[in-house]
Amino acid sequence: MSLGKFIVIEGLEGAGKSTAISQVLASLEQHGIAQVTQTREPGGTPLAEKMRALVKEECEEALQDRTELLLMYAARIQLVETVIKPALNGGAWVVGDRHDLSSQAYQGGGRQIDPHVMSSLKDIALDGFKPDFTLYLDIDPQLGLERARGRGELDRIEKMDLSFFQRSREKYLELANQDDTIVVIDASQSIEAVTNDIKAAINQWLTDDVKHG
Amino acid sequence: MSLGKFIVIEGLEGAGKSTAISQVLASLEQHGIAQVTQTREPGGTPLAEKMRALVKEECEEALQDRTELLLMYAARIQLVETVIKPALNGGAWVVGDRHDLSSQAYQGGGRQIDPHVMSSLKDIALDGFKPDFTLYLDIDPQLGLERARGRGELDRIEKMDLSFFQRSREKYLELANQDDTIVVIDASQSIEAVTNDIKAAINQWLTDDVKHG
Repeated sequence: MSLGKFIVIEGLEGAGKSTAISQVLASLEQHGIAQVTQTREPGGTPLAEKMRALVKEECEEALQDRTELLLMYAARIQLVETVIKPALNGGAWVVGDRHDLSSQAYQGGGRQIDPHVMSSLKDIALDGFKPDFTLYLDIDPQLGLERARGRGELDRIEKMDLSFFQRSREKYLELANQDDTIVVIDASQSIEAVTNDIKAAINQWLTDDVKHG
Repeated sequence: MSLGKFIVIEGLEGAGKSTAISQVLASLEQHGIAQVTQTREPGGTPLAEKMRALVKEECEEALQDRTELLLMYAARIQLVETVIKPALNGGAWVVGDRHDLSSQAYQGGGRQIDPHVMSSLKDIALDGFKPDFTLYLDIDPQLGLERARGRGELDRIEKMDLSFFQRSREKYLELANQDDTIVVIDASQSIEAVTNDIKAAINQWLTDDVKHG
């Protein structure tokens, strides 16, 4: 294998992304994949982290939905071009905490931005670049938000109302059903059961698709 | 007249935009237009000014051309929706130091970003919103840059090479020739001559198009 692979963990607040990422990293190590770069979105470079701060922070001035969307994509271009693609081209694997599916779910689903705007921007920013494998941790937003609130202070987006997250979840599921590189994990289960499902999904993909594909 | 008008001053570094803006404001006052909001781009709101800082500052991480473009448009959406449109709808006139034509010239012309990307983003961000009247101060980039350097430290974009500004100027002229709401002013003349031309152009527009149009 000359090039690395790009694996993304997706899901609503409180779905258990951090635990899932640890499990993915452990599975990669067990398969002898040592060179791994971790990213998070929005952010992941010094400039992209400043854009993250602009969408996360609360201030008196109301951030417009399309401003938020363009900031997300500005940060994504910066991360993909300066971190993700160079890592993959250098043979490293990349494990991302969120990527484009989050924008589709939150801005496209949650904020109900025009689908043509969503697809134009995706084309402008990514030009067909996409993850090799995505684990979507599916959870009822009510349960996820309860877990997230238990962790402490919520940011501007995390404070949206329940219907916003319900629309986001619907969009996640809709897109997962259309793309066989996205595996849906039932994140409402116990941590052990979720971890086992993640381990099984990643092992199957590594064995079937990557090594023999 | 129930609604205000949006007037924009455009031009390369050193073309004399600040002096032109003062003249436009004086002309508006002479015509009894008292309620005027001034804007600058990129920037003009607290959040948009933070986006301006990201495109202007020099740092080790190379800002990608499309990241720059999306930041410009993110800032523009924020300014148009939270400042310009509310001002116009409240009956104020708006005088802008740069607007979309700058992106067409610098990012489209100077950086040679794909014309389809440029037009898609413009549609996404502005949805047909445009200035009522634009004064484009045309100057040879070599002369403009000499003037700008005389003012002191140049920012990241101002430090681009001469060919960048030559392409930007060509795009400015190309677009000005296609749009009869854009008047080209020869900014290589003496300050007095430039001021007279601006005064004449704005008076003609106010008399012909606004009051009788």
